[in-house]
Amino acid sequence: MPSLFETSVDVEKAFYSAFMRCDMTAMAELWAEGEVICVHPGSPVIAGSAAVLRSWEHIFEAASTPDLKVSVVKKTLTDTLAVHVVEEHITAGNDMTVVVIATNVYQKLSMGWLMVAHHGSVSHAHTAKHTVQ
Amino acid sequence: MPSLFETSVDVEKAFYSAFMRCDMTAMAELWAEGEVICVHPGSPVIAGSAAVLRSWEHIFEAASTPDLKVSVVKKTLTDTLAVHVVEEHITAGNDMTVVVIATNVYQKLSMGWLMVAHHGSVSHAHTAKHTVQ
Repeated sequence: MPSLFETSVDVEKAFYSAFMRCDMTAMAELWAEGEVICVHPGSPVIAGSAAVLRSWEHIFEAASTPDLKVSVVKKTLTDTLAVHVVEEHITAGNDMTVVVIATNVYQKLSMGWLMVAHHGSVSHAHTAKHTVQ
Repeated sequence: MPSLFETSVDVEKAFYSAFMRCDMTAMAELWAEGEVICVHPGSPVIAGSAAVLRSWEHIFEAASTPDLKVSVVKKTLTDTLAVHVVEEHITAGNDMTVVVIATNVYQKLSMGWLMVAHHGSVSHAHTAKHTVQ
């Protein structure tokens, strides 16, 4: 049985750890059940935990484990609901880094904090050469 | 002095009404002050109320008033924080309709409910012919 997440920050850490390792078991343990929402960059809304988890399975099957750096832009918190806006810097397979903005929503439920929504959209892309040199 | 918004739904109604009418005065009255966040489709994060309002000014200056239909996908609410995921069906100037997914975040502050984040991204586009006939 998975351990409970005690804060929204714990869920977010688990989310990006699962994403980075393409770990479907870990990904499945951090989403709430029921009417959760996921929007992958450039894609329509996916609603419902089964469909959301299937979408992550498809991404993980197609992808090599990405290099992923996450920086928090803004957190808005209450006792039972948290919204984190973050920037994901994703590099996969070449020197191109895609910057994705994600709005992540977490809710405190009977099983502790869980993810209830993830909305990602591409901000811009850049090559390593442009940023390092 | 603007009237207070008593619910997140009231703010959302004012937001889309301002958007549809390209009404900058109304738009300025429904955003919280300070470290609010706005992400327009395909664009980086805009942080801070002054920069966010400037971005809407630029959009309204460049745009003709759009035909805009909004449908709510999911609302997650607490007493002081609300997250609405919606689909915006935007038609402007021709028969092309762009479907934008938006995650809208509202917070109850001393001045009533106000918008604290708007994250929009394009889902897909279609022409009237494809949907009507």
